Amino acid sequence: MTDAVDDVMFDVFARECPSRETLEHATGRWGVLALVALLDGTIRFNALRRRVAGISEKMLSQTLQALERDGLVRREARPTIPPHVEYSLSPLGADVAAKLLELIELLEGRMPDVLAARAGYDGRRG
Amino acid sequence: MTDAVDDVMFDVFARECPSRETLEHATGRWGVLALVALLDGTIRFNALRRRVAGISEKMLSQTLQALERDGLVRREARPTIPPHVEYSLSPLGADVAAKLLELIELLEGRMPDVLAARAGYDGRRG
Repeated sequence: MTDAVDDVMFDVFARECPSRETLEHATGRWGVLALVALLDGTIRFNALRRRVAGISEKMLSQTLQALERDGLVRREARPTIPPHVEYSLSPLGADVAAKLLELIELLEGRMPDVLAARAGYDGRRG
Repeated sequence: MTDAVDDVMFDVFARECPSRETLEHATGRWGVLALVALLDGTIRFNALRRRVAGISEKMLSQTLQALERDGLVRREARPTIPPHVEYSLSPLGADVAAKLLELIELLEGRMPDVLAARAGYDGRRG
Protein backbone atom coordinates (compact mmCIF):
# COMPACT_ATOMS: atom_id res chain seq x y z
CA MET A 1 0.00 0.00 0.00
CA THR A 2 3.03 2.24 -0.39
CA ASP A 3 1.66 3.90 -3.51
CA ALA A 4 -1.27 3.80 -5.88
CA VAL A 5 0.28 1.22 -8.20
CA ASP A 6 1.00 -1.21 -5.37
CA ASP A 7 -2.53 -0.71 -4.06
CA VAL A 8 -3.91 -1.89 -7.34
CA MET A 9 -1.49 -4.72 -7.89
CA PHE A 10 -1.19 -6.48 -4.53
CA ASP A 11 -3.73 -6.92 -1.76
CA VAL A 12 -3.53 -9.65 0.88
CA PHE A 13 -7.29 -9.41 1.32
CA ALA A 14 -7.83 -10.65 -2.25
CA ARG A 15 -8.15 -14.40 -2.26
CA GLU A 16 -5.89 -15.03 -5.25
CA CYS A 17 -3.26 -12.33 -4.66
CA PRO A 18 0.27 -13.81 -4.47
CA SER A 19 1.03 -11.47 -1.57
CA ARG A 20 -1.28 -13.56 0.62
CA GLU A 21 0.92 -16.61 0.05
CA THR A 22 4.06 -14.66 0.95
CA LEU A 23 2.38 -13.28 4.05
CA GLU A 24 1.52 -16.84 5.05
CA HIS A 25 5.11 -17.98 4.56
CA ALA A 26 6.41 -15.11 6.67
CA THR A 27 3.80 -15.44 9.42
CA GLY A 28 3.22 -19.18 9.41
CA ARG A 29 3.65 -21.26 12.54
CA TRP A 30 7.35 -21.80 11.81
CA GLY A 31 8.17 -19.11 9.27
CA VAL A 32 8.02 -16.32 11.84
CA LEU A 33 10.34 -18.12 14.26
CA ALA A 34 12.82 -19.09 11.52
CA LEU A 35 12.98 -15.52 10.21
CA VAL A 36 13.46 -13.96 13.64
CA ALA A 37 16.10 -16.57 14.59
CA LEU A 38 18.01 -15.64 11.43
CA LEU A 39 18.23 -12.02 12.65
CA ASP A 40 21.11 -13.27 14.82
CA GLY A 41 23.14 -14.01 11.68
CA THR A 42 24.12 -16.79 9.30
CA ILE A 43 23.42 -20.19 10.78
CA ARG A 44 23.62 -23.86 9.82
CA PHE A 45 20.54 -25.99 9.45
CA ASN A 46 20.95 -28.04 12.62
CA ALA A 47 21.75 -25.01 14.77
CA LEU A 48 18.65 -23.29 13.44
CA ARG A 49 16.61 -26.38 14.21
CA ARG A 50 17.80 -26.33 17.82
CA ARG A 51 16.95 -22.62 18.10
CA VAL A 52 13.38 -23.12 16.84
CA ALA A 53 12.46 -25.61 19.55
CA GLY A 54 9.88 -28.18 18.52
CA ILE A 55 10.24 -27.98 14.73
CA SER A 56 10.81 -31.20 12.80
CA GLU A 57 13.61 -31.53 10.25
CA LYS A 58 11.06 -31.83 7.47
CA MET A 59 9.07 -28.76 8.55
CA LEU A 60 12.19 -26.62 8.89
CA SER A 61 13.32 -27.73 5.46
CA GLN A 62 9.94 -26.89 3.91
CA THR A 63 9.77 -23.57 5.77
CA LEU A 64 13.22 -22.49 4.59
CA GLN A 65 12.50 -23.58 1.03
CA ALA A 66 9.34 -21.44 0.85
CA LEU A 67 11.17 -18.45 2.36
CA GLU A 68 14.10 -18.93 -0.04
CA ARG A 69 11.76 -19.08 -3.02
CA ASP A 70 10.13 -15.80 -1.93
CA GLY A 71 13.57 -14.20 -1.66
CA LEU A 72 13.48 -13.71 2.13
CA VAL A 73 16.14 -16.29 2.98
CA ARG A 74 19.42 -17.18 1.26
CA ARG A 75 20.78 -20.71 1.21
CA GLU A 76 24.47 -21.35 0.62
CA ALA A 77 26.07 -24.79 0.33
CA ARG A 78 29.66 -24.60 1.62
CA PRO A 79 32.17 -26.84 -0.20
CA THR A 80 33.64 -28.15 3.04
CA ILE A 81 34.26 -31.79 3.97
CA PRO A 82 31.69 -32.81 4.94
CA PRO A 83 29.69 -30.17 3.01
CA HIS A 84 27.29 -28.07 5.01
CA VAL A 85 24.53 -25.61 4.27
CA GLU A 86 24.15 -22.15 5.76
CA TYR A 87 21.11 -19.91 5.86
CA SER A 88 20.91 -16.13 6.15
CA LEU A 89 18.40 -13.33 5.60
CA SER A 90 18.21 -11.32 2.38
CA PRO A 91 17.84 -7.54 2.86
CA LEU A 92 14.08 -7.92 2.36
CA GLY A 93 14.04 -10.86 4.76
CA ALA A 94 15.81 -8.72 7.35
CA ASP A 95 13.17 -5.99 6.96
CA VAL A 96 10.39 -8.55 7.38
CA ALA A 97 12.09 -10.22 10.34
CA ALA A 98 12.55 -6.84 12.05
CA LYS A 99 8.79 -6.23 11.83
CA LEU A 100 8.11 -9.70 13.19
CA LEU A 101 10.50 -9.12 16.08
CA GLU A 102 8.63 -5.92 16.99
CA LEU A 103 5.42 -7.95 17.07
CA ILE A 104 7.00 -10.69 19.20
CA GLU A 105 8.42 -8.17 21.67
CA LEU A 106 5.02 -6.51 21.94
CA LEU A 107 3.29 -9.84 22.64
CA GLU A 108 5.94 -11.15 25.03
CA GLY A 109 5.74 -7.90 26.98
CA ARG A 110 1.94 -8.03 27.16
CA MET A 111 1.54 -11.72 28.04
CA PRO A 112 0.38 -10.89 31.59
CA ASP A 113 -2.60 -9.09 30.01
CA VAL A 114 -3.18 -11.98 27.62
CA LEU A 115 -3.14 -14.54 30.44
CA ALA A 116 -5.53 -12.40 32.48
CA ALA A 117 -7.85 -12.17 29.48
CA ARG A 118 -7.74 -15.95 29.05
CA ALA A 119 -8.56 -16.51 32.71
CA GLY A 120 -11.50 -14.11 32.49
CA TYR A 121 -12.77 -15.71 29.29
CA ASP A 122 -12.53 -19.23 30.67
CA GLY A 123 -14.14 -18.11 33.95
CA ARG A 124 -17.16 -16.66 32.14
CA ARG A 125 -17.60 -20.01 30.41
CA GLY A 126 -16.57 -22.13 33.42
CA MET B 1 11.84 -8.89 25.62
CA THR B 2 11.00 -5.41 26.87
CA ASP B 3 12.77 -5.88 30.18
CA ALA B 4 14.63 -8.50 32.17
CA VAL B 5 11.53 -9.89 33.84
CA ASP B 6 9.70 -10.39 30.55
CA ASP B 7 12.80 -12.02 29.10
CA VAL B 8 12.70 -14.63 31.78
CA MET B 9 8.99 -15.18 31.80
CA PHE B 10 7.95 -15.31 28.17
CA ASP B 11 9.86 -16.50 25.12
CA VAL B 12 8.21 -17.53 21.88
CA PHE B 13 11.23 -19.70 21.11
CA ALA B 14 10.47 -21.92 24.10
CA ARG B 15 8.25 -24.79 23.03
CA GLU B 16 5.85 -24.59 25.96
CA CYS B 17 5.69 -20.82 26.44
CA PRO B 18 2.08 -19.52 26.22
CA SER B 19 3.35 -16.57 24.17
CA ARG B 20 3.94 -18.93 21.27
CA GLU B 21 0.25 -19.80 21.18
CA THR B 22 -0.76 -16.13 21.21
CA LEU B 23 1.73 -15.38 18.45
CA GLU B 24 0.18 -18.18 16.40
CA HIS B 25 -3.32 -16.81 16.94
CA ALA B 26 -2.21 -13.32 15.88
CA THR B 27 -0.17 -14.48 12.87
CA GLY B 28 -2.17 -17.52 11.78
CA ARG B 29 -3.52 -17.84 8.25
CA TRP B 30 -6.73 -16.02 9.18
CA GLY B 31 -5.86 -14.29 12.46
CA VAL B 32 -3.67 -11.70 10.77
CA LEU B 33 -6.33 -10.79 8.19
CA ALA B 34 -9.11 -10.62 10.80
CA LEU B 35 -7.06 -8.36 13.09
CA VAL B 36 -6.05 -5.99 10.30
CA ALA B 37 -9.62 -5.86 8.94
CA LEU B 38 -10.80 -4.86 12.43
CA LEU B 39 -8.49 -1.82 12.30
CA ASP B 40 -11.23 -0.22 10.17
CA GLY B 41 -13.57 -0.30 13.18
CA THR B 42 -16.36 -2.29 14.78
CA ILE B 43 -17.89 -4.74 12.34
CA ARG B 44 -20.52 -7.46 12.24
CA PHE B 45 -19.61 -11.09 11.68
CA ASN B 46 -20.92 -11.38 8.13
CA ALA B 47 -19.34 -8.11 7.01
CA LEU B 48 -16.01 -9.28 8.42
CA ARG B 49 -16.41 -12.58 6.61
CA ARG B 50 -16.89 -10.75 3.31
CA ARG B 51 -13.81 -8.61 3.97
CA VAL B 52 -11.58 -11.63 4.67
CA ALA B 53 -12.20 -13.23 1.27
CA GLY B 54 -12.04 -17.01 1.27
CA ILE B 55 -12.60 -17.69 4.97
CA SER B 56 -15.32 -20.13 5.98
CA GLU B 57 -17.91 -19.26 8.62
CA LYS B 58 -16.49 -21.93 10.91
CA MET B 59 -12.88 -20.75 10.53
CA LEU B 60 -13.80 -17.11 11.14
CA SER B 61 -15.74 -18.12 14.23
CA GLN B 62 -12.81 -20.15 15.59
CA THR B 63 -10.33 -17.40 14.71
CA LEU B 64 -12.35 -14.72 16.51
CA GLN B 65 -12.89 -16.97 19.52
CA ALA B 66 -9.14 -17.54 19.96
CA LEU B 67 -8.42 -13.81 19.55
CA GLU B 68 -11.19 -12.91 22.01
CA ARG B 69 -9.84 -15.38 24.57
CA ASP B 70 -6.37 -13.81 24.26
CA GLY B 71 -7.89 -10.36 24.83
CA LEU B 72 -7.12 -9.02 21.35
CA VAL B 73 -10.70 -8.89 20.09
CA ARG B 74 -13.93 -7.85 21.82
CA ARG B 75 -17.26 -9.48 21.05
CA GLU B 76 -20.52 -7.72 21.80
CA ALA B 77 -23.97 -9.19 21.30
CA ARG B 78 -26.42 -6.37 20.50
CA PRO B 79 -29.94 -6.84 21.89
CA THR B 80 -31.56 -5.88 18.60
CA ILE B 81 -34.31 -7.77 16.77
CA PRO B 82 -32.93 -9.90 15.28
CA PRO B 83 -29.92 -9.89 17.63
CA HIS B 84 -26.52 -9.42 16.05
CA VAL B 85 -22.93 -9.68 17.15
CA GLU B 86 -20.25 -7.06 16.65
CA TYR B 87 -16.49 -7.41 16.87
CA SER B 88 -13.85 -4.79 17.62
CA LEU B 89 -10.20 -4.59 18.67
CA SER B 90 -9.12 -4.20 22.27
CA PRO B 91 -6.33 -1.62 22.84
CA LEU B 92 -3.78 -4.48 22.82
CA GLY B 93 -5.40 -5.92 19.70
CA ALA B 94 -5.09 -2.52 18.01
CA ASP B 95 -1.37 -2.42 18.86
CA VAL B 96 -0.88 -5.92 17.46
CA ALA B 97 -2.93 -5.16 14.34
CA ALA B 98 -0.90 -2.00 13.70
CA LYS B 99 2.31 -4.08 13.67
CA LEU B 100 0.70 -6.58 11.34
CA LEU B 101 -0.43 -3.80 9.01
CA GLU B 102 3.15 -2.51 8.83
CA LEU B 103 4.27 -6.00 7.85
CA ILE B 104 1.53 -6.32 5.22
CA GLU B 105 2.35 -2.94 3.72
CA LEU B 106 6.02 -3.90 3.56
CA LEU B 107 5.25 -7.17 1.78
CA GLU B 108 2.65 -5.72 -0.58
CA GLY B 109 5.12 -3.01 -1.57
CA ARG B 110 7.91 -5.52 -2.19
CA MET B 111 5.93 -8.14 -4.09
CA PRO B 112 7.72 -7.32 -7.38
CA ASP B 113 10.97 -8.42 -5.67
CA VAL B 114 9.27 -11.52 -4.27
CA LEU B 115 7.89 -12.51 -7.67
CA ALA B 116 11.31 -11.97 -9.28
CA ALA B 117 12.88 -14.16 -6.60
CA ARG B 118 10.29 -16.88 -7.23
CA ALA B 119 10.95 -16.78 -10.98
CA GLY B 120 14.69 -17.05 -10.39
CA TYR B 121 14.28 -19.91 -7.92
CA ASP B 122 11.97 -21.85 -10.22
CA GLY B 123 14.24 -21.20 -13.21
CA ARG B 124 17.27 -22.63 -11.41
CA ARG B 125 15.26 -25.79 -10.74
CA GLY B 126 13.46 -25.77 -14.12
